[in-house]
Amino acid sequence: MPTNDFAFEMATSAIRFGAGVTREIGYDLAELGIKHALLITDPKMRTLHPVAVAEESLKSANVPYTIYDRVRVEPTDVSFKDAITFANGIEFDAIVAIGGGSVIDTAKAVNLYTCYPPEHFLDYVNPPIGKGKPVPGPLKPLFAVPTTAGTGSETTGVSIFDFAEMHAKTGIAHRRLKPTLGFLDPDNTRTMPPHVAASTGLDVLCHAIESYTAIHFTERPYPDRPIMRPSYQGNNPVSDVWSLQALRMVGQYIDRAFQDPSDDEARSQMILASAYAGVGFGNAGVHLPHGMSYPISGMNRQYFQTGYDSDHPIIPHGYSVILNAPAVFRFTASACPERHLETAAALGVDTSGVALADAGKVLSEKLTAMMQRLGVPNGLKALGYSTSEIPALVEGTLPQHRVTKLSPRPASKEDLAKLFEETMGLY
Amino acid sequence: MPTNDFAFEMATSAIRFGAGVTREIGYDLAELGIKHALLITDPKMRTLHPVAVAEESLKSANVPYTIYDRVRVEPTDVSFKDAITFANGIEFDAIVAIGGGSVIDTAKAVNLYTCYPPEHFLDYVNPPIGKGKPVPGPLKPLFAVPTTAGTGSETTGVSIFDFAEMHAKTGIAHRRLKPTLGFLDPDNTRTMPPHVAASTGLDVLCHAIESYTAIHFTERPYPDRPIMRPSYQGNNPVSDVWSLQALRMVGQYIDRAFQDPSDDEARSQMILASAYAGVGFGNAGVHLPHGMSYPISGMNRQYFQTGYDSDHPIIPHGYSVILNAPAVFRFTASACPERHLETAAALGVDTSGVALADAGKVLSEKLTAMMQRLGVPNGLKALGYSTSEIPALVEGTLPQHRVTKLSPRPASKEDLAKLFEETMGLY
Repeated sequence: MPTNDFAFEMATSAIRFGAGVTREIGYDLAELGIKHALLITDPKMRTLHPVAVAEESLKSANVPYTIYDRVRVEPTDVSFKDAITFANGIEFDAIVAIGGGSVIDTAKAVNLYTCYPPEHFLDYVNPPIGKGKPVPGPLKPLFAVPTTAGTGSETTGVSIFDFAEMHAKTGIAHRRLKPTLGFLDPDNTRTMPPHVAASTGLDVLCHAIESYTAIHFTERPYPDRPIMRPSYQGNNPVSDVWSLQALRMVGQYIDRAFQDPSDDEARSQMILASAYAGVGFGNAGVHLPHGMSYPISGMNRQYFQTGYDSDHPIIPHGYSVILNAPAVFRFTASACPERHLETAAALGVDTSGVALADAGKVLSEKLTAMMQRLGVPNGLKALGYSTSEIPALVEGTLPQHRVTKLSPRPASKEDLAKLFEETMGLY
Repeated sequence: MPTNDFAFEMATSAIRFGAGVTREIGYDLAELGIKHALLITDPKMRTLHPVAVAEESLKSANVPYTIYDRVRVEPTDVSFKDAITFANGIEFDAIVAIGGGSVIDTAKAVNLYTCYPPEHFLDYVNPPIGKGKPVPGPLKPLFAVPTTAGTGSETTGVSIFDFAEMHAKTGIAHRRLKPTLGFLDPDNTRTMPPHVAASTGLDVLCHAIESYTAIHFTERPYPDRPIMRPSYQGNNPVSDVWSLQALRMVGQYIDRAFQDPSDDEARSQMILASAYAGVGFGNAGVHLPHGMSYPISGMNRQYFQTGYDSDHPIIPHGYSVILNAPAVFRFTASACPERHLETAAALGVDTSGVALADAGKVLSEKLTAMMQRLGVPNGLKALGYSTSEIPALVEGTLPQHRVTKLSPRPASKEDLAKLFEETMGLY
């Protein structure tokens, strides 16, 4: 057997796209012979149009259902367990998740933990925090109905949560967690406030750049067995196609989606871009910007995002990722400058005549300009962090090696400290 | 409900790519707990490297298996039934198909007809020849291992065969027919003779151009129920990405794959392009070139392809499709000239300054030049057809409305006659 891998595998959820497809959910559940659906959402979404349309659809197709609406935005193991306990109390044979990444990720966990209850909660969780046990068998049908254009969670087998006692983000990753079908309905993202359109759209952008600049799939070691090949495999020709296409669309439409929630074309393109980038990073992976984002979210004690109606401090996931991007891509560009330049070009930068040595600078300047235009807080300081917390942020990043090891340039403790330092203020 | 559809659905088999992935088949079957595999192939492939590697892999993973090696190249209902009867005589819980489209399509039929035997053979077959009944439930795991870079059958839910008593090609199409996993192993296409590399590569090219120039998905009527939305949905943003990328790769690599079977890079790119185009047309569809190809193959009584070791007259599928392409695209270009020009550009034509009115001409000239370079027979006359057979060829095309109705410009009987006329001789 070769030392390094020589293959990659591409898998994705089926997706259905169209303004109004949420109306079809009931029919699809009925066709599957579903006797009782569990509809999972968050308290705010519960009151909004997408859930109302889905309920109407379930009723008209005579599919009985129960609603769980206590999903925590930026979920934790505690909030996951609340949802799992609720689900264990009812009989259901399919799940419909309506919301952003928090809702869809919670639904994946509910599906796994109710179908195959583990001995210990951390059994399925990514190492080193958990044991990383594979999902033992097929799960129940899960329909994912995103209401933000960001996480791409409807296409991936990844579920991210905050492990409360360690204040660290971690997750569960396995192909079998993938939703059965993603309903991409641009009508469902009309309810996004502008800062949500910005932060989730910038998350899409980071998914795409990180998967395109990740190590190549042949730079990973050959797995113990083919089935142990991770979902996050490194850059590969299939993910490349989807990541670059997503970048072209984000570059073209994110400003319009931010400025005018009634711009149907921009919202349609952004929800497609989110799914495309999901296919890209879902098979290639993300690296340092995401790895560094987890302690930024996990250690947050004071930043409340206006408009989140949240009872706890919260940094929108897209912000905690994109803030790291300028420093990271300046740092990683030397490892694969062409790829960094290609992402800048996909975002609309004229890269003809740009020297390879300037790839990181050019990409980072483009990103910083976009962030400023989209009202992203000015660095970690604006989120309430001070330089004295950098060692803790570094310590919180180190365990995230499932993603950080995909960085095209390895980052030492000192490198990470410097990256956080540069991320303190941006404009 | 709207009159026309407003949504599309994208689904594809998982694919694994890498030189040598055939060695992993046994491990994957073992992980699935498979007790006995049915390995389906054709008599010639049975003696070649890909089957030997797969057998070695099954043996080393201790997965017992039975081989069926009587697949007919360009299969018929009679050859399907032979395979189904054989399969009914053994106990198996997974299928491994190793070969070109004929083998993979036969394996799909075996999977369906042994899992859910219909009352009549034609129950599942596309209308108007059959009843078009949907696949009733999930099928057994099917691994598809293509040994040509052409049909993309490893990614689609389509199985094509010749209905012997009508001398007409027809098929079965349903999402559930899709293989579980496609093994794209460039080592397996090294055995292709040059004319097979050419004909299958030109099939890829037609899949991509036809799906890109098919009607838009919103030009189809809304289905009775969402689940009845066909696989062949018309052009859509996801298929567009796959189709154009496949064209870029075919334009760049088909000559090298034809000229030098030892060109690993060219073969790798062509097998990926074949899968990409498979996802494209598998969700968008094909139109006139494929619709017209079915009577061309079905009515053939005298053309034997050198190198096919066949006991019956045979026109390679790719030839019977590509021959129609120049006349068809001259005919359809007026309906969507931009799309025709975009496909020409993806194939490497400099289209700057080309008038939209010349789109069909420019694309057709590019295709004709490629065909001539790749040794494609000079039109229907070179296959043994004469103009007196045009009415019969037209009659054989008319029932193919599952595909012909996707043409961006409707073709009347008279139009079809003219297209066949123009296809008699090309150079």
